[in-house]
Parts: sequence; C-alpha cells; structure tokens
Amino acid sequence: MTFPLAHRVRDLSLAEAGRHQIRLAEHEMPGLMALREEFGHAQPLRGARIAGSLHMTVQTAVLIETLTALGAQVRWASCNIFSTQDEAAAAVVVGRPETGGTAEDPRGVSVFAWKGETLPEYWECTDEILRWIDDETGQDVGPTLILDDGGDATMLVHEGVVAERRGAVESDPVPGDRGFSHEKLVFLATLRRSLEQDAQRFTRLAASIRGVSEETTTGVHRLAQLAATGDLLFPAINVNDSVTKSKFDNRYGIRHSLPDGLNRATDVLIGGKVAFVVGYGDVGKGAAESLRGQGARVIVSEIDPICALQAAMDGYQVARLADVIGQVDFVITTTGNVAVVTAQDVAAMKNKAVLGNIGHFDNEIDMAGLEALPGVVRTEIKPQVHEWTLPADVAPDGTERTERSVIVLSEGRLLNLGNATGHPSFVMSASFANQVLAQIELHTDAEYLQVAVGGTPDVHRLPKELDEKVARMHLEALGADLTELTKEQAEYIDVDVAGPYKSDHYRY
Amino acid sequence: MTFPLAHRVRDLSLAEAGRHQIRLAEHEMPGLMALREEFGHAQPLRGARIAGSLHMTVQTAVLIETLTALGAQVRWASCNIFSTQDEAAAAVVVGRPETGGTAEDPRGVSVFAWKGETLPEYWECTDEILRWIDDETGQDVGPTLILDDGGDATMLVHEGVVAERRGAVESDPVPGDRGFSHEKLVFLATLRRSLEQDAQRFTRLAASIRGVSEETTTGVHRLAQLAATGDLLFPAINVNDSVTKSKFDNRYGIRHSLPDGLNRATDVLIGGKVAFVVGYGDVGKGAAESLRGQGARVIVSEIDPICALQAAMDGYQVARLADVIGQVDFVITTTGNVAVVTAQDVAAMKNKAVLGNIGHFDNEIDMAGLEALPGVVRTEIKPQVHEWTLPADVAPDGTERTERSVIVLSEGRLLNLGNATGHPSFVMSASFANQVLAQIELHTDAEYLQVAVGGTPDVHRLPKELDEKVARMHLEALGADLTELTKEQAEYIDVDVAGPYKSDHYRY
Amino acid sequence: MTFPLAHRVRDLSLAEAGRHQIRLAEHEMPGLMALREEFGHAQPLRGARIAGSLHMTVQTAVLIETLTALGAQVRWASCNIFSTQDEAAAAVVVGRPETGGTAEDPRGVSVFAWKGETLPEYWECTDEILRWIDDETGQDVGPTLILDDGGDATMLVHEGVVAERRGAVESDPVPGDRGFSHEKLVFLATLRRSLEQDAQRFTRLAASIRGVSEETTTGVHRLAQLAATGDLLFPAINVNDSVTKSKFDNRYGIRHSLPDGLNRATDVLIGGKVAFVVGYGDVGKGAAESLRGQGARVIVSEIDPICALQAAMDGYQVARLADVIGQVDFVITTTGNVAVVTAQDVAAMKNKAVLGNIGHFDNEIDMAGLEALPGVVRTEIKPQVHEWTLPADVAPDGTERTERSVIVLSEGRLLNLGNATGHPSFVMSASFANQVLAQIELHTDAEYLQVAVGGTPDVHRLPKELDEKVARMHLEALGADLTELTKEQAEYIDVDVAGPYKSDHYRY
Amino acid sequence: MTFPLAHRVRDLSLAEAGRHQIRLAEHEMPGLMALREEFGHAQPLRGARIAGSLHMTVQTAVLIETLTALGAQVRWASCNIFSTQDEAAAAVVVGRPETGGTAEDPRGVSVFAWKGETLPEYWECTDEILRWIDDETGQDVGPTLILDDGGDATMLVHEGVVAERRGAVESDPVPGDRGFSHEKLVFLATLRRSLEQDAQRFTRLAASIRGVSEETTTGVHRLAQLAATGDLLFPAINVNDSVTKSKFDNRYGIRHSLPDGLNRATDVLIGGKVAFVVGYGDVGKGAAESLRGQGARVIVSEIDPICALQAAMDGYQVARLADVIGQVDFVITTTGNVAVVTAQDVAAMKNKAVLGNIGHFDNEIDMAGLEALPGVVRTEIKPQVHEWTLPADVAPDGTERTERSVIVLSEGRLLNLGNATGHPSFVMSASFANQVLAQIELHTDAEYLQVAVGGTPDVHRLPKELDEKVARMHLEALGADLTELTKEQAEYIDVDVAGPYKSDHYRY
Repeated sequence: MTFPLAHRVRDLSLAEAGRHQIRLAEHEMPGLMALREEFGHAQPLRGARIAGSLHMTVQTAVLIETLTALGAQVRWASCNIFSTQDEAAAAVVVGRPETGGTAEDPRGVSVFAWKGETLPEYWECTDEILRWIDDETGQDVGPTLILDDGGDATMLVHEGVVAERRGAVESDPVPGDRGFSHEKLVFLATLRRSLEQDAQRFTRLAASIRGVSEETTTGVHRLAQLAATGDLLFPAINVNDSVTKSKFDNRYGIRHSLPDGLNRATDVLIGGKVAFVVGYGDVGKGAAESLRGQGARVIVSEIDPICALQAAMDGYQVARLADVIGQVDFVITTTGNVAVVTAQDVAAMKNKAVLGNIGHFDNEIDMAGLEALPGVVRTEIKPQVHEWTLPADVAPDGTERTERSVIVLSEGRLLNLGNATGHPSFVMSASFANQVLAQIELHTDAEYLQVAVGGTPDVHRLPKELDEKVARMHLEALGADLTELTKEQAEYIDVDVAGPYKSDHYRY
Repeated sequence: MTFPLAHRVRDLSLAEAGRHQIRLAEHEMPGLMALREEFGHAQPLRGARIAGSLHMTVQTAVLIETLTALGAQVRWASCNIFSTQDEAAAAVVVGRPETGGTAEDPRGVSVFAWKGETLPEYWECTDEILRWIDDETGQDVGPTLILDDGGDATMLVHEGVVAERRGAVESDPVPGDRGFSHEKLVFLATLRRSLEQDAQRFTRLAASIRGVSEETTTGVHRLAQLAATGDLLFPAINVNDSVTKSKFDNRYGIRHSLPDGLNRATDVLIGGKVAFVVGYGDVGKGAAESLRGQGARVIVSEIDPICALQAAMDGYQVARLADVIGQVDFVITTTGNVAVVTAQDVAAMKNKAVLGNIGHFDNEIDMAGLEALPGVVRTEIKPQVHEWTLPADVAPDGTERTERSVIVLSEGRLLNLGNATGHPSFVMSASFANQVLAQIELHTDAEYLQVAVGGTPDVHRLPKELDEKVARMHLEALGADLTELTKEQAEYIDVDVAGPYKSDHYRY
Repeated sequence: MTFPLAHRVRDLSLAEAGRHQIRLAEHEMPGLMALREEFGHAQPLRGARIAGSLHMTVQTAVLIETLTALGAQVRWASCNIFSTQDEAAAAVVVGRPETGGTAEDPRGVSVFAWKGETLPEYWECTDEILRWIDDETGQDVGPTLILDDGGDATMLVHEGVVAERRGAVESDPVPGDRGFSHEKLVFLATLRRSLEQDAQRFTRLAASIRGVSEETTTGVHRLAQLAATGDLLFPAINVNDSVTKSKFDNRYGIRHSLPDGLNRATDVLIGGKVAFVVGYGDVGKGAAESLRGQGARVIVSEIDPICALQAAMDGYQVARLADVIGQVDFVITTTGNVAVVTAQDVAAMKNKAVLGNIGHFDNEIDMAGLEALPGVVRTEIKPQVHEWTLPADVAPDGTERTERSVIVLSEGRLLNLGNATGHPSFVMSASFANQVLAQIELHTDAEYLQVAVGGTPDVHRLPKELDEKVARMHLEALGADLTELTKEQAEYIDVDVAGPYKSDHYRY
Repeated sequence: MTFPLAHRVRDLSLAEAGRHQIRLAEHEMPGLMALREEFGHAQPLRGARIAGSLHMTVQTAVLIETLTALGAQVRWASCNIFSTQDEAAAAVVVGRPETGGTAEDPRGVSVFAWKGETLPEYWECTDEILRWIDDETGQDVGPTLILDDGGDATMLVHEGVVAERRGAVESDPVPGDRGFSHEKLVFLATLRRSLEQDAQRFTRLAASIRGVSEETTTGVHRLAQLAATGDLLFPAINVNDSVTKSKFDNRYGIRHSLPDGLNRATDVLIGGKVAFVVGYGDVGKGAAESLRGQGARVIVSEIDPICALQAAMDGYQVARLADVIGQVDFVITTTGNVAVVTAQDVAAMKNKAVLGNIGHFDNEIDMAGLEALPGVVRTEIKPQVHEWTLPADVAPDGTERTERSVIVLSEGRLLNLGNATGHPSFVMSASFANQVLAQIELHTDAEYLQVAVGGTPDVHRLPKELDEKVARMHLEALGADLTELTKEQAEYIDVDVAGPYKSDHYRY
C-alpha cells in the first residue's frame, strides 16, 4: 500500500496551509480548547491508544490534538472516501509547531486518509489504524479505544472476530444476492487478508479494547443491534444522543453546511425554488430551516406521524415525494434509511433539478438503480458534481418525457462533506467535546473498565452533567450570559443549583 | 355555597352560545372526534367516575363530552379562578342537544366553575368534584379517576389523607412563615371543614381511586416528588410528557395564545419592540417564536446551559433580566419556577412596559413583593389588566427614577387564559386525546389496576404507540400526507412498518 | 336623527374607560405627542375647521386631540359602520381632563359615530361633519379642510356639487343595473335631502375647502381619477404614499391586526394550516408575514408579475385561488379590488374554512353573490362572525358536495376593525403624524392656498423631509440609535447631512 | 500588454468547463433565453457595437451571447480585478459550439479579463473595450453603446473628453491630497497614454455613442451627477432602478451570495453569532435576512430614519457600529458610501471577527487606514482571505488590548464576487434581461437617438411595461401561476388588463 499523502506532505505548503486553518479553527472550538485547559495537566488519557475513524477535516485535527494533549496516543483514518481535507491531514502528520516536526521528520499523528480514496484504499486505511506496534516488543498491541463515526472500525473488529471464530471469511455474494455491493467484496477481501496473516488478530485486538465512542445515529443503531443480540464485544458510549451533539451538530451543523454544499456544487439560486426534504428528524429540521432561510418553499416527507405533525406545525407542506416530484427543484435526503429516493423518482424529476444526500450512507438515494436505468448517461460537471442525463421515455402514467438531466451531488454520499467542508468548527466543537469526555469516561471509569474485562457490554449515554458541561463551555464564545438559580428556586424545582436541571426524558 | 353559574344557566342564550362554540370546536378537535368514532361503541370508560380539574373552556367541553361518550360519569371544576368560559360551562351543564336538556332541566355534567371565582369558592369547587353520591345507597362513593391540571385535586386528596392520618390539619402559617400565602389559609380551611364533617373521607376516597392523569409540567413534578418519597397514593400517568402534548400544546399552543393574550389585553404593537422571555423550555420556545413572528426583537434568559445554547443558536440574545431590563417593552415568564421576576425587576422596568406570565402559577412574578413596594398603586384598566404605578424613587445604583407604571396582565396568572381564551382547539385536541387515552389505560389496564389495589404506585408515561396514534389522528385535518415505510426500509432501521419508529430517548 | 352615542355618553364609565385607553395610547403614539410638543405653542392650525372621516378608534382620539392642540376646530365621523370604539368616541366628546368636561357638559369635539351604524345613519353622520354653524352669524360656513379615509366625505362633496350643478340627483339604479347597491340608494337619498334643503350647499362648501388629506390607496385612487378628468375641486395630499404610511401602517399594522382579528373572531389555530392571501402589495406582504409567523403555510395570488415574483422569492407558493381553494383553511383578501373572491369560490371552500377581508371595501368578497346563492343560510355565531351554510350541491366539475359551512368575518368588511381594534397605536402614530403634517401644509402653505382659490387642483405627496421627520420621531421609542453621516460621507453620496437621503423614486 | 487569458484559453479544458457551466446557467436564466426566443429572428441589435464592463462571470457569458444572438458586436472587460471566472471568459472567447471555434481559432467575443488583474492591467482592459477597428477601413470606430457596471467605462470616456478638451491630463495627486489613491495614479496614466497616441480619441468616441445602460446604484449616482451639471455626453438608462433589478439582484442576490462568500472564505459558523450589517437598503435587507436565516443575531446601522425604522420593525436591533463593535462576530458593509468602517473600528473588533464588504467599492472599509495602523501585520490565509493582526495597544477609552486579529475578505472588495461566484444565475437573469431591453431601447428608440445627436442627455428608467415583462419571464420557472384581472376588475382599478398595474411612485 502506498500512501499518497506521505508524498504530499513533502509539499510543505500543504501542511502549512493546514496549520493556518487549524489555528483559526481552534478559536472556533472553545469546547476542545477548554478541555485542554482543564485536563492538560492531569493527562487523563495517558496510556490510551485511540484508533479514530472519522472524517479527517480541520476540525478533526483539533480533536486529535486535544486527545494527544490529554495524554493519548492516536492513529486516524477517515470514515468517508471523499471527506478528507488533505491539508488538515498533512498538518496533523507534521505535528503541532512546538514539536518541531517537519515534512521530512514528521512528529505528529499517523493519519491514513486522503481526499478521493478508492474503496480498497479506504478499508486498508481503516485496517491500518487498528495496528499498533509496541516500540519495545515489536508486537501489535492494538488500540485500547475506538473513536468511531458510522461504525466501520467497530464493524471491522466485530466481523473480524466472527470470521476468526469460524476460521474463515464468509464467501463473496454475487450480484443479485441480498446485501451484495462492490464495497462488500472489498470488505471481505480486507478480512481475508488479515486472517491469512494472523488467524487470531481481531480476537486479540477486541480483548484489549476498553470501549468505543460512536458519533452517529447509524453507528449507534448498529451498536444497539449488537448489544441486543449479546454480540457487542466491548462497552460503547453513544455520543450521538448527547443533546449537545444530536440537537446541535445534526441540526445547526446541517443548517450551515447544506446551503454551503449546494452553493459550492451548483451556484443555483435556492430562493423562490421548491425544495423537498426527505425526513424531518434533527437533520431534516436543520435542512428545512436553512432552505426556508434562503427563501425556498420547502416540502417535507415523513414516515413518523409525530415528526410529520411537527413539520406541518412548523409551516411546511407534508407530502409524499412521488406526489409532488414534478414541481421540485431540489431533493435532499436526511433519513439514514435506504432508497428513500428511488431510480423511478429520479426519472420523474424536473430537468436540471438537484439531488443530494445529507443523511448518512450513499444508499439513501438508490444510486445503483439510477446507474442501471436504460440509456442513462453520467457526465462530470466538476469533481463531486455529476449530470445524469435520462433519455426520452414514457412515464409510468403513460406521459411521454423528453430527454432531461438531473444534477447529483457527491455521487449520493454526504454532500456537505463532498461538496463543501462539512460542519463548521463551532458545532463540531460541541460534538467533539462529547467525544473527548466519552473517551475519558471509557479510559478512566472503573465501571466501564470492569465491563470491558468480563461483564456484559452495553451502549451507554453520557451523563446529563457532562452534556450540560459541554453546553456551558460554548456559551461565552456566543456572548450568552447564563442566569443562575437562586437557592430558593433550585429547591422549588428540586434540583441542585449547579444542575443537572432536567429529567432524563426531557426532550429540549 | 352558591353557584352563580346555576343561575346563569337559566339565561338560555349563554348555554346556546356555548353550544355553538362547542360545535365549531369539535371541527377543530379531530383527535377527540376520532376517539368518539373509534371507541364510542365499545364504551371503554363504562363504570368510570372521573373528577376533572382543568380550565373549563370550550375545548374542555369537547373533552368532557368525549369522556361521557365513552361511558364515563364526570364531575368538573376549573383549575384556575379566571379561566372558565361561562358559556362553555353552561352548555356542558345543559348537555348535548340529543339529551334534550334545558336550562330548567339540565341533563349534562355537573360543572363547578365560573369566571372570576374567589379563592374560597375555588377550593370549594375542587372539593365538590370529589363528592359522588351513589343514587341507590346515598353514600359518597367518590371518583375512580382524577383528570388533573396542575395537581390541585390530587394534592387535596393527598393532603386530606395526611391530615386524616394524624387526625388534624396543620396549623395556619402566619405572614413571614415560609410557604405562607392567602391561598394556603383557604386550603387548610377547606381541609378542616372536611375533617370536621367526616374524619375518614379522604382516606376512603383515595382507596377507591385507580389513578390520575396529569396535564402539566408542574403537576407531574409534584407527582414525581410524592413517588420519590413513597407517598403517592395511586398510579399516575404523566400526560404532559407525551410528545404530542409537551411539544405541541406547550410550544405551538403558546405560539398562538401568547400574542392573542397580549393583543386582547393591551392592543400594544409588538413589532419593533424588545421582548424578554424568561425561560427557553417548550413554552419559552413557542413564546419567543411568536414574538419574533410579529417582528419583535427577543431576548431570552435561561438557567440551563443546554437550553441557553439552543436560544443562542436560534438567533436570540441570551442575557440576564437584570442586565437589560431597562430596554425591554414586554417581559413574559415561561418557567414554572418562583420569583423569576422580582419586585425589584418590576421597579426597574420601562414606563408602560407590559408584564405577563404564561408559565404556570402566579408566583413566577413576585406579585406579593410588588404589592408590598412602598407607594405602589394598582389601577384596573379593564378586567385582568392592571396598571401598577410606582412612585418616584432612587434605583439601587443611585439613579433617580420618576413616577412610572407597568402593565401587569391577569394579576400574574396565566395570561393566555386570563386575557384570551387559552390554547386553540386544535392543540388541545392533541393534549386531550392523550388525556382520554390515559384515562382508558388507567381504567382498563390490569397493570395499573393491580398497582391501585396494593402495589407501589408510580408515575408513568403513555407508550409511544399511543403518542404516534394521537399524532396520526391530527395529520389529515392539516392536509399532511404521511409516507409509508417499505418493508425493506423498516427492516433496515429495525422497526415495524406500523411503528413505533423511535427509541424512547429520542427527543424530536 | 338620534345619536345613540349622545345617550351613551351619559354613562360616565364609558368616557372614563376611553380616557384611560387614550392615556395609554398616547404613550404608544410618540409621533403625535412630538408634534404637540413641537407645534403646541405656534398653533399652526388656528383657524382651520377640519371635517374628519376616519375610523373613530382610540388612536383617532389621539389624532383629534392633536389637531385641536395645534389650534384646529374639528368635527368627526367614522368611515366604517363597525369600526367605532364607543368609549373612545365618548371620551373625545367629553374632552381632555383639563377642559373639565363632563357627560352632562361635554367640552370636547363633536363626534358622529358609534359601533354598528346602519347605512342611513352612516351617511347622515358623514353629512353632519360638513355642517359648521358659525356661532355669531348662525350660518353654515362648512369646513376648511377634510381629513379623509377612503374618500367618502370627499365623494359626498364632489357628488353634491355635480348634483347641484345639474339641479337634481341622478335617479336610483335598480337591481341588475351596473353600480347598483343598497348603499348607492342610501347615498343618493342623502344627496336629495341636502338639495331639497339648500340647492347650493355643496357648491358653497366646496369653495371654502382648501384641501383634503387622504389616508388610503382606494381614496387616493378616487382622487387621482378626479384630477385626471379635471374634476377635482380642491388640492389633495396623498398621505397613503408617504413611506411611513404605506410601508408601515399597511404592512406592519396588518401584520399585527390580521392575526388579532382572526383570533378574536374564531380562536381557530393558525399554525399548521393553509392560508391563502389574495394580493401581495404592502397589505398582502404584512398579512403573509404574520400568518407565516404563526406557523401557517401561505399561498399567495397576484395579478402583477412583479409582486408575484416577490412573493415567490419570499418563499410563498403563488397560485390562482380557484386552483387550490379545496386545501385552504383561511382566505384573506388584501387587494382594494372587487370580487376577488366570488360566490363560486366560497362554494368551493373547505368545510368551516374562514374568510375575511383586510383590503378595503366589502365588495372584495362578493357578499351580494354569496347571499344570492340558492339555499345558503347565514347564522350569527357572535357579532361580526357569521357561519354561512351551503346546501349539498354539485360542483361545476360534477363532484357532489355535502352540506358545509364557511365562517365569514365582519360581513366582508375590514376584519381587523370589525373583529379586533384595528391597527395598534404605534403604527397609527406614523400614519397620523403624516396626516397632521398634511393638514398643516394645506392650511399654511401658500401654494396650496393659491390653488384652492382658483388654480388647477392636483394630488400631491408630502415632501421626503417630512416623511423622514415622521420616521425620526418614532425611532427613540424603539430604542433605535440612528447613525449620523460624516460630512465627507454626505458629500460622497451628494446629500445633506440632515437629509433627505434618497431620490424620489427610491422604493425602500 | 500581455493577456494571460490568451494563453490559458489554449488549455482547452478551461473553455470546455466554462461551456458546461454556461449550458447549466442558461437553464437558470429564463429571462435571457426568452429574449433570444422573442428577438432572435428580428435581430434588433444589428449594427450595435457594445462595449461591456461588467464582472466576467458565467452569467455574464449568457448575457454576452444573448446580445450577439440579437445581432450585436461585443467587446468585454470585467469591472472588478477579482471577479472574472476564467473558464467563463475562455468559453466566450472560443464561442458557442455552433460557431465551431476552438482554442487555436476562437470565434467568440473579445474578452479582456482574468481573475486577479493588477490595477494597470484593469484599466488597460477597460480602455481596450473602447477600441473598435473597422475591418474595412482599419479605423477605430469605437462602440455605439456602453453596458456599464459601476461606471468605470463611462468615466473613462467622460474624463478622456475633459482631458482632451483642455489638452492635458490633470497632474497626479500626492499622498495626503483629497482623492489620492493608487488607483487614481493608474487611471491618470491610462488617460495620458491615450492622449499621447491620439489627442481626440475620446472626443470622437463619445460622439459615436448613442447611450449607456448602467447596472448599479453607484454608477447611476455618478451619471445623475453628470446630468445635473450638464456634463453627461450621451443618454443613460438606469437599469439599477428597475424593480426587477434593484429589488431582486440587490436583495435576493445578496441573500444568496453573502453567506456563500462567508462560507467559502472562512467556514466559520454563522448561527448563534452576532452579525452587524452596515446599511439597510436593498442590499442590507438581503444581507440581514440571510444572516438571520442562518441563525445569527443581526444588528443594523442606518443613517436614513426611514430605513432605520424598517430595520427595527423587521426585528433587528438598530445601533451605531462603535457602540456594539466589541460584541460583533461579523461586520458586513452594504452602503455604497465611504469609510463606513474606519481603521479605528477595525482596531476595536473582537479577536478573529470577520469583516467584509458587499456594498460597492473597496473604500467602504477604510483599507488604506487599516494598512496605515502602526504595527499591523497582514497574512494571507488563502487567496482573498487575509488575517490582519493588530499589536497590543491601548484603546481610545484607555483599556489595554492584547494582540488580536481580524479576518478581512477580498481586501475590502465585493466579497460575494471575490470569495464566491457572485449572484446566482437566476437573479442575474432578471438584471440582465433589463440590460438587454435597455440596450435595445438605446439602439432602436428614436427618442434616445435624437438626444444622442444633439439634445440634452439625461438619465432614464425603463418603462414599467418592460419591468413587468422581465418579471413575467421569470415566473414560470418558479412554478408561479399569475392570476388574470377580469375586465371588470381592471376597470375598477383603472388599468389595462395587460398592465402596467401600478403608478410610477409605487414602491413594491
């Protein structure tokens, strides 16, 4: 395996540009900087070996350097083939200025990520962060913690253990099989290579892992399924469901990065147009708000009647995609579910309408189905922006349709990462402060430790105190002055003056 | 005790006007009408005797008549001395048209409520709904269920049982004592009267109650405290925390009824003015949204850093009341806590600024403290709207202040009920559909029954299926078309096609 | 003619309640109070006899008392049969406290207006304000100025002069004639009565009038038509097109008073519903903004492509009423045109949908056509709120329709005046400050005077300096700090440091 | 002079990329495409030689190709050194596909523009578009029309004529002189070079120009000043003040491109931050709306009391910059005036605050003053994004300030053009359709022609019919259905069924 990045780091300007951006991002990440301030001396992560799989952006660079500032050793991969910002990766590899690292003699963190990986490269990178050669013994001791986004690193370990238990990797599916995908073949090949080299590697690895902290709805869902069947190998902390994550990153991050991605990709006016948002969870709420804020008329679809009622009460039309697709200029998916836009939906879209996904995986839009449409032609307008031209045909309802085209962003992958730079630093500061606190909990809390060495692992959420702590760390930067409860008031509502202030089921 | 209403019902036009409004409200309460449709035949509330303590409005009339349509017997009081709409009460007393009731021969439900009760009248009414004379035996068999809003009926039973256990009512506090209030004296007098008549009445009563369903944050909090100390006498269902209650009634109801109350009370322009919202929970969120929607600049205060961060991210200035009070034209309290506006705050307000409470009790604004300010004069502008004139004085910071006045709404009680007609029917339909489902659960579910006859009572929430059911019943009226999951999609996210769709900790 | 108000003023509490409200309104009308302060000493309206025809509300009371404070004599009628607030009228009749007026010995201004006039009463009142008996000579000297809203007083004078010129009033139209209406008959009868008494009264009257200032789009349009044909009898100032009128009263006033009127009339939830706004001029813009601010989904119709494009760019669906009427919960007319909602439109509305006019005359909705629909039944829910029940029938497209009803507000007249209290004081302060300045211009400016005595009268707008002056008078009350141009900056954009700052065609 | 672009066009992929983007932009510019459709056959611009000075973007490419499709010959320069999109320029040079042009044998339009011109290059390019060598005679016949943005081309002609009249160019100002700037020296050098070559060139040129159409407020202002002093050399059409320009491009274009520019430049979260908008004209209104739509708290400053009152009524805090600068995260200038942000203001900004101009020239922010601050250091973060670090110092009020930095976008030039791609195609379609119609008017309307050959030139606006026509051409693409007046309604409001619908002073 060759790491293109290794070469590119020689280009000093790349690392320098990244360092500039990291310095500016630090100013926008008051949560992470406050954690360095609070815990830098105590080094609560001393002894931790953290394998991170999360979009390798400038913000992640500040996260990585916060983890190392708290004493951890770190190896990193991206969790998306397009999302790496190469200059950020380069700067992290070279290391913070005080280390004196240079392009020739980097002293930072090992990063296995670059923008535009192939799928084989992606899984090789993911595999790589789990290898940890002890300097003295030369043995691969593996990580003690995983910091995951979407669960690919965790899945690799779990599937590796399964394969090692039965002594073989499952056989490759063929097209037409349920679960078949090109990526599946690559993934199985990655497992096979490991088993060939070392038939117990993942089993040893898993035993030394104290826990994983997971960033996303999708990843948490995978963990919950493992826990439900008793197959979870180590404790997990669900960072996604901290309020300061799910209600900030998912909502306010998307509010920022959705129009940003649309603009950089297409420069098409949003105002006055009709935008369709598939799903009205936190991501959908942020998406709809941002499109309305730009003057679009927003239509929302939902499968959950409660979220549907929220959308209606927030003033959006609630309709099924198929019923209104002919009037829609933008279709944005936000669900974390599969095939919420089918190939037939795409075929029914307006000429030059824009289609993008900001939910999770690239199966939200049925890209495979689109590719399989007879006569469809894909033209690259610019990187991550493709025009799919559909030939003249007859619609299911018998209408004749002329040739037309649809603009698809980031090949169906997350458009805010593929077409823009992801969430802004400030919201990531909240998410990542939760990640750091989760890593500290996993590394230091005896309870998690105990489970890790023999108990029944489960999926946990961070205690509300820490959630409130993360919020508190971000208020001053926004000029927000918190009011303090009087003792009388605290007693009246039966809480401590210092919090936490709400019951666990409070919804914010 | 005389019931002014009894006389007023003779005025047929009152009941007729109420019936007109009830007919229109039914159209706006699709949830309750759907429950009549679904359960009218099965009569799941047959045998239930429901004592209801909840604002006696037109919407509550539709609730009451839904409960009776499902088989229940009902007695009703209001939970606020100002909130009764007399025409609604009159119409409920006379009864639905098909009963053939008249003012002289009413055939509806016994209602003990009128607009503008005194405190002694209020507690006498609350006491009255707990009395249930069996037609055959002439014995007071009491209610089997309580439907409560704020918890006054439940408190009366619990305090009654405490007093009966020790054989006496606690002695009256005197001014200066903690917890002293005029209302406290009235409450204790009510208890004493009952003990004098029948020393075991509340004890018997409590034993026959299968449960209570509670409408508000405040009432739920009281119940949770009783459960925590093991003093809860019967199971409770927390209706407030159904999503279709707390996130609809609290937020969207307030969004509607706050400007309505302000307008009817004062006719003062909201646009361009500065409005201060104390608290950014669901009620505060709805309040802030409505004021911004009218063009006001909104400033928010919070004690919870998470809610404070939400307010900031939603674009509101977050400040402490005392720091900005001199620029504020409206102060609205939304907290459920005490003395969030002190008399000193009122003294620092702008001339002719407007002060109102839409949170819960009338102690959110320190009305007692305001009354006690030296030289203060209270003038009635119209019912529920008072001008409090403050004499020229010297501010704490040494500034001389001229004579000025502040407009206080509803004497510090809920301004949307006191100055307008409360929440609109549609949101109450969602809240009340939850209430009806909760009453059915309490009346029919063996688990609750079992607890009621000897287990350890606790506070429960309605299952998510019922929450989603309530949402579903309201979509069609808004023209919202729900999308249906495919089987493949349901499997992918691991839910049933018919729901429920979210984990219990999902925040919406 | 009997004046009910004259009797009602005996009820002192009415005048006292009005005085209370006037005192509070003065605080909200900084423009008028600033004019009293600036001009009270100079008495620029000394010698003016002002006949005012404008909704007799609390705000108008402050206007009237500003005119008298500047030296004018005043007589007043309302310009709408429903819009008078009787307590305001009573207080104005009694007079400001310092006059020592009482109900028995009123010392204020003659007001001919009460809530709920009949049409004959309305025109008699309008006629009455033009009669001005000189104390010494006993002669009717008439007004020197008209302050008009909608142009009824001005029309009466102009049509009177026409009739006197030809010596007779035109003959009554009969049903079916173009321009026939019940009001037309009443109007002609009023003219006839005057001609019978005095065949030259209007001619004399017109000659002594120096000018009129007009409040509304509709009235200005009538004046422009008269000027275009050379029939305008005296100069007119178009107050409506001051920016501080048309862009404040029309837009921000409606934003406030539309939801207020809807709420007081119906208590129906606006959020989540579909609202249709007919017209997207200033009134339509304010209407749409307020409905969206309450969470409604708003659809707009327009005949002007520029305004239609604005509506689309502001995020509203732009559609024809007939195309979407079946999904609409509220229909609001804002056009100043006729029959923008036809009887057939009403017949196609949803059951219990709400229909109201906030544009101008009651012919925006074809009320006559509605009344003429076969089988239609009108039921009064409460004053100014009627349910029109339509029998089961067959729609033009052949669909069978069941019996259904529509709620019509204020019988098609202005709903904010009929169902609520009109615009709030603050916006009226801006409009009325323009009126006062216009009256001063007409009374004192030699140019207008000259025209009045023989030139060719035309319709004028107030100079931009006065428009900016009105704006300036309202900023402090909103806490808005104006920035001052440096001399260098003023030169750079070629204006005076003190303004005016924009070219005449600037659109704001 | 070397044209870097000439070389770059050899890079075929540049022109091809541009052609792709032009093809997509054509779909978003329905106004220009409709004009090609309507006038392509008649060739109304046959014989016109148009010198265009306007940002050379993809949208301008569609404008240029519309002008040539209508028969015109065209030469083009950009009006801003940073705003050229090189691929658009390259594609226009190569020509539309049907011409068969190639990089070696371009057959399109001569374009003198590239991204990142120096000031001498800029003025050389502007000079170049005025040179028009007749193929037959070899003489420089000059343009017959100017299409201008900001007025630089027009100014060059006018100043050229002035210099030629007196036989010499004014002498160079020195630093400290009023009006001194580096650009002034470059401009005078350009004039001098022309006079040296041909002492009557501009005089001849001006005589053959039939008129200019001007795009911006600033340019129109310059023209109005020339007309006021009688120095305007040919008629001008003020395109800026078409409603479909000033209220669309200025407002909705900015709403789109301001956050786009901020995001591409800085990736800093806008939500929750405090943004200060200097000026509340159309540009300021669009800026404020977009920032609020992203969740920022917006503060506005104004010198015009009417606009200030609008800002307040729209819910924004209105304050002076100096009073609140310490709390502000973004400062955006929108005024078209000079030094609205001074060097002292910059020195008082928060650490890492962002400062950008979206008004007009780069003197809105006092960049020269900033550069002159002692100890200030400018670091390039990336092209068009600079960090200005200010040394520790003492504030005017005596406070000690630590070292801090401010991010300045596009060196004070228009940030939406420098940091993003300018307005989106759709709004430019409206602006440019006005430009095309203005060019047709100037070329074909006898009245303009007459003036051009001897009358007194003035500044005109396009007739309202054309404004409405432009709006109409853009409605269908937005799915907006226009309502048609009935004949009765048209008569009632005294307009033609086909429009125009409003008086000239109507403000929209």
